[in-house]
Amino acid sequence: MNLKIGVIKGDGIGPEIVTEAMKVLDKVAGVYGHTCDYTQLLMGGASIDVHGVPLTDETIAEAKACDAVLMGSIGGDAKTSPWYKLEPSKRPEAGLLKIRKALNLFANLRPAVLYEELKGACPLKEEITEGGFDMMIMRELTGGLYFGERKTEEIDGVMTAKDSLTYNEEEIRRIAKRGFDIAMKRRKKVTSVDKANVLDSSRLWRKVVEEVAKDYPEVAVENMLVDNCAMQLVKDPKQFDVILTENMFGDILSDEASMVTGSIGMLASASLNETKFGLYEPSGGSAPDIAGKGIANPIATILSAAMMLRFSFDLDKEADAIEAAVAKVLKDGYRTIDIMSEGKTQIGTEEMGNLISENI
Amino acid sequence: MNLKIGVIKGDGIGPEIVTEAMKVLDKVAGVYGHTCDYTQLLMGGASIDVHGVPLTDETIAEAKACDAVLMGSIGGDAKTSPWYKLEPSKRPEAGLLKIRKALNLFANLRPAVLYEELKGACPLKEEITEGGFDMMIMRELTGGLYFGERKTEEIDGVMTAKDSLTYNEEEIRRIAKRGFDIAMKRRKKVTSVDKANVLDSSRLWRKVVEEVAKDYPEVAVENMLVDNCAMQLVKDPKQFDVILTENMFGDILSDEASMVTGSIGMLASASLNETKFGLYEPSGGSAPDIAGKGIANPIATILSAAMMLRFSFDLDKEADAIEAAVAKVLKDGYRTIDIMSEGKTQIGTEEMGNLISENI
Ligand SMILES: CC(C)[C@H](C(=O)O)[C@@H](O)C(=O)O
Ligand SMILES: CC(C)[C@H](C(=O)O)[C@@H](O)C(=O)O
Repeated sequence: MNLKIGVIKGDGIGPEIVTEAMKVLDKVAGVYGHTCDYTQLLMGGASIDVHGVPLTDETIAEAKACDAVLMGSIGGDAKTSPWYKLEPSKRPEAGLLKIRKALNLFANLRPAVLYEELKGACPLKEEITEGGFDMMIMRELTGGLYFGERKTEEIDGVMTAKDSLTYNEEEIRRIAKRGFDIAMKRRKKVTSVDKANVLDSSRLWRKVVEEVAKDYPEVAVENMLVDNCAMQLVKDPKQFDVILTENMFGDILSDEASMVTGSIGMLASASLNETKFGLYEPSGGSAPDIAGKGIANPIATILSAAMMLRFSFDLDKEADAIEAAVAKVLKDGYRTIDIMSEGKTQIGTEEMGNLISENI
Repeated sequence: MNLKIGVIKGDGIGPEIVTEAMKVLDKVAGVYGHTCDYTQLLMGGASIDVHGVPLTDETIAEAKACDAVLMGSIGGDAKTSPWYKLEPSKRPEAGLLKIRKALNLFANLRPAVLYEELKGACPLKEEITEGGFDMMIMRELTGGLYFGERKTEEIDGVMTAKDSLTYNEEEIRRIAKRGFDIAMKRRKKVTSVDKANVLDSSRLWRKVVEEVAKDYPEVAVENMLVDNCAMQLVKDPKQFDVILTENMFGDILSDEASMVTGSIGMLASASLNETKFGLYEPSGGSAPDIAGKGIANPIATILSAAMMLRFSFDLDKEADAIEAAVAKVLKDGYRTIDIMSEGKTQIGTEEMGNLISENI
């Protein structure tokens, strides 16, 4: 099989970590008789430097011509990057919002997993995480406050800013279905998170999710208010299987959940549309402070590549091989600095990529 | 001094915990030569039962005639209470939103403190909380998504729900000033939380906060994105002094922070307007599952009464006396069930109130 993959190396540590993921993809392709055909795409700060904008229409067209896109990270240091002197619509993250909308990537999957081997890095006490946890945050990615009309204007001499949060039942239904489909392949539990005691959009969300739930009688479903969910993630993360939520709540809760694992450098993510196409990227940011030092953890990106094989190419065996290789290298005691602990062997970005490759 | 205090006992554990707080208030008043003049006010489920609505205009008028209001908790069990069969605008929480707006309670202060004595209940590992933490969440309470226009309608045959998030510079300025004023009495650090890389309202928020900051040269101020803040609360809560944020973000982050302390039954809150008037209530909910059992922790409500003495009546000595009595009782090893640990003495709601009273 020929895999046509768009590659956005991105900003900060992006180029380093993507290079290792490509190395691993090439290895797995070699072993299983596939070929990877990469198209380099510019986005974020790297695109601003060349084109003056974070994402050009040509890049979007090129991305659409690929089967999937692998991405490093977008953005820089808001305090020091010259990009952050630009108006908001020209900043690196604007490219991220634009590509999500342009490619209709409405379903954002963010696993938050406590790795047994890395329990030491988890900020929670052992009695809470005993036995580990493994949840999937399913975040709606193309609606809500992120894409509503907004306006800042003077009203009676007072500056006033307005954002709007809109969802229609079709947008809710398609993400809910994805959430339940994923739950069927997991532990068959969906926690739908909203703020239905306040928001109209949340009341519609809850209604539609309850309708969709009827088509999945095997799945246990519960509604949880977003403020309560923010508490429960800290109090008892083991209770969750799939968390299904809208865009802004998903942004906040997925980041909280990833920090609760203690190993954000390990967490992959996928953003999918109605087809097999997907954008795959690590959950963490561009970490400009350590860029170019060869110490960033490439595992999240490598696991994102595994998600890509699984979701966009249906290559489950190949994805399993990558995940097994990652597990093996961790078991053998190799760690990048972010997940380092006593008695383990500290290695750099490239060495980590090499070791995972060798284990495939 | 005669303290004219409105009392909303509320739902669930509300009546039990408020009774203990009144007992403590009466004791402190007696010792320091004041009198408490209480006016009982109905709100929430208790008001629905009597008047069919969660808050009547008469109750609002009576509340306004008081110097301050002490409240238990509002709401019931969404799964079983008959109140939750009512349409949203008639449910208990609607009273909460209505009273906030009617009394213009724009500044919601929620302390999140790790009590040295109760470290065992904290979900975070000891190495993270070493030395304790003590932050104050300052949440804007009368604007944003909570009070924007909302509408659910069929558009081209598709049900569509819309909420809106509006802030003007005056609303932002007054809460920011309160935040900085509080910081001046604390460790002089303000973390202003927004989502300025996406929302217009957040960009205006950031601009106004930066303007207000100029009047407080002694206060260190930083901007933090809400998703990052949700992570930092788990990773390193010690970094925070005052967190200043808008209504919805404040709802989520204050609940997360309270759970991070592990002792939500200890956390007070105050909601203030431009005058000395305030509404004081525990941070936790109505806990219908343990209502009437005499086991609820009254300390959060008792500490809310102390906040009332401090903020609405400028009775600092009296507030100190309550706080010292709480600390003493904890030090003596008395615990309600929610904060119980090995080797301590478990007592009920009333006993806890009595002991705190006796220590004043
Ligand atoms: C950079 C930002 C616009 C983005 C978001 O809020 O979606 C990021 O936080 C994320 O979660 O991918
Ligand atoms: C009950 C609900 C409307 C309320 C809110 O969201 O403000 C509560 O969660 C709180 O934080 O006081």
